[in-house]
Amino acid sequence: MREVSVIGAGMVKFGKYDGRPDHLAYKNHEELGVEACKVALKHAGVNHRKIEAAYAGQTATAQIQLCQRVTVTLGISGIPMYNHENACATSFAAFRHAYLDVANGVHDIVLVFGAEKMSMGRSGGAIVLPEGAMFLQDIGLIMPAFFALLARRHMEEYGTTREQFAMVSVKNHKHSTMNPYAQYQQELTFEEVLNSRMVCDPITLLQCCPTGDGAAAVVLASAAVARQYTAKPVRVLGCTVHGGEYKASKGDFTAIASCVNAAKELYEITGTGPEDVDLCEQHDCFTPHELVTYEDLGFCEKGEGGRFVEEGLSDFGGKCVFNPSGGLQSKGHPIAATGVAQIVELIWQLRGECGARQVEGAKVGLAHNGGGIGPEFEPGLLSLAMVAV
Amino acid sequence: MREVSVIGAGMVKFGKYDGRPDHLAYKNHEELGVEACKVALKHAGVNHRKIEAAYAGQTATAQIQLCQRVTVTLGISGIPMYNHENACATSFAAFRHAYLDVANGVHDIVLVFGAEKMSMGRSGGAIVLPEGAMFLQDIGLIMPAFFALLARRHMEEYGTTREQFAMVSVKNHKHSTMNPYAQYQQELTFEEVLNSRMVCDPITLLQCCPTGDGAAAVVLASAAVARQYTAKPVRVLGCTVHGGEYKASKGDFTAIASCVNAAKELYEITGTGPEDVDLCEQHDCFTPHELVTYEDLGFCEKGEGGRFVEEGLSDFGGKCVFNPSGGLQSKGHPIAATGVAQIVELIWQLRGECGARQVEGAKVGLAHNGGGIGPEFEPGLLSLAMVAV
Repeated sequence: MREVSVIGAGMVKFGKYDGRPDHLAYKNHEELGVEACKVALKHAGVNHRKIEAAYAGQTATAQIQLCQRVTVTLGISGIPMYNHENACATSFAAFRHAYLDVANGVHDIVLVFGAEKMSMGRSGGAIVLPEGAMFLQDIGLIMPAFFALLARRHMEEYGTTREQFAMVSVKNHKHSTMNPYAQYQQELTFEEVLNSRMVCDPITLLQCCPTGDGAAAVVLASAAVARQYTAKPVRVLGCTVHGGEYKASKGDFTAIASCVNAAKELYEITGTGPEDVDLCEQHDCFTPHELVTYEDLGFCEKGEGGRFVEEGLSDFGGKCVFNPSGGLQSKGHPIAATGVAQIVELIWQLRGECGARQVEGAKVGLAHNGGGIGPEFEPGLLSLAMVAV
Repeated sequence: MREVSVIGAGMVKFGKYDGRPDHLAYKNHEELGVEACKVALKHAGVNHRKIEAAYAGQTATAQIQLCQRVTVTLGISGIPMYNHENACATSFAAFRHAYLDVANGVHDIVLVFGAEKMSMGRSGGAIVLPEGAMFLQDIGLIMPAFFALLARRHMEEYGTTREQFAMVSVKNHKHSTMNPYAQYQQELTFEEVLNSRMVCDPITLLQCCPTGDGAAAVVLASAAVARQYTAKPVRVLGCTVHGGEYKASKGDFTAIASCVNAAKELYEITGTGPEDVDLCEQHDCFTPHELVTYEDLGFCEKGEGGRFVEEGLSDFGGKCVFNPSGGLQSKGHPIAATGVAQIVELIWQLRGECGARQVEGAKVGLAHNGGGIGPEFEPGLLSLAMVAV
């Protein structure tokens, strides 16, 4: 496979583009997607006519052929255009497809984006649970409950405390005060997080990602083409995706097996390990997810996740900065945009363009994105990508 | 790129699985998808544990992660799983992605399927027009109108008659009487087609594809792996996809430029031409589409499409059998299933498994699938694949 680089990255500020007086001015899926793509193309210094294929992340809120609807406004036509859906890993799946196509020589320069509109508005549909999953809703086994069950078991087995989970939210909200693209940019105190309304014990409201709108885009190119456009290409060292794993027989419900396996594969492919990673954009939809991911990715031993955050090892100055952007917790989680937005933050960080939240000297970044519901307590798709300068 | 073969193909009978007394027994997306995949896996003689990646075609009716929901029932877990949407080319886009991954050595054996539920039922959402396309609906520029405008222009420029368009429907309905998987299996007379209710002049009701439900699946493998499973692999010679082309400056509104370009690329890649093709599963959503496709694919000269069908050149015994399955017109058009279902028919034909509708001695088959709305009168994605024994 050929070396692949990200040569441009852009996004819109996350938030609610529903036109309410206290929210952002109304924008639909197309407008958000177009804006993010234009920023990414400009960041790359690439004319839209150079793009050889386009890959969109879209959920059912965008309904149909978002890739075509966005690229037509950019003046792009006649090229392969794809639309990927994969729940919260939607645009990451598009990224993986684009990465493989460039790595395998199918295309030399491509555009990948995701755009999401979760706020009520004039455009778009809604995401409804498929029939086969309705019983989960009926018995209350919705997303926060999944992670709450995992958290309770972690507390039971390893003595992890509810305070340690809350620290993830405090940390990520603090990070987002330095990110003008974040949906929320205000610091939260430990007490505010811990004492906010209980959603699903031990997860309080301020430990849940918000709903919102947004878009993010990246331009990928082969190494040879990348050199024509930038002196600062960020190489994609590897990208792995795993569907959820059956693990009942393995008996460990505090680990996400698909993450452990995807990480093992990624480290093998890239010849790296957690000790090489300077920052990680992690899928902190609910705080326990970040805490167990420290363990699943090998940043600490099994059961040590609570201590890892408490000792500041996932913060600036620690072992690896988790979610310098603010993460899903505070940067926000417009589903179809999230995967690519994680890559955007990594690219900006590795190019040293992140201002106050810059991870100094960052050379290697990791994106971790999980989407949907797979077997047992697994996500439907667990996705990782390693990038480096 | 490596040689890729289709080693198994399966589908469910198309129809309305809504449980009404005069329709088929109720089935949801998952049930339809699972059934088609099981047939394809059995046809291939492949155990589900051998599958290394899965690619689904799903529209907004299926909402979310159909690939995961279907494969979990098949006992497949832990592998890359993708969900593609591309309007009427939805599962074809998934097929293209799968084909590239096998051709490029990412995987050796993969499963591709599409499942669609357009009839009303307890499961699934509905497809709604995106905001940006609503003005098209408001001015009446919906799908039959697009093809009616193209047809009128063809009549004006080339003397094509409304009778010639009707002949496409008569031919394809006749073919479907021999296809137990077709939604409709009754012959229509020329008068019935021509005199059915006018939908959009010159397109009458019986020249429009029906709505319905269905699923289709194929198993792809590298040549080396294919040999382990079958003595009758069908090789994928090539697969091209093109977004709609801007063509206003070219001035020809009776040709679909993305089809002309995708065909040119496909013939170049595969070293074949229309003279080599024994049968074509063509996207005959409305009869004028099949007629102009004879021209766009080079089976006849520009303007000769009407004569081509009138002289029986697209029927059994002609130059190339178009839509031996009955096509979208009569086999049906459950959107997300259609692209893969076209491939299924080609595989069955090239393996000589089609009974009464068998194209004798068929060696080369072509699938033609168009989806959505691109710039001007172009589809959002025009997709072609050439397969051969």
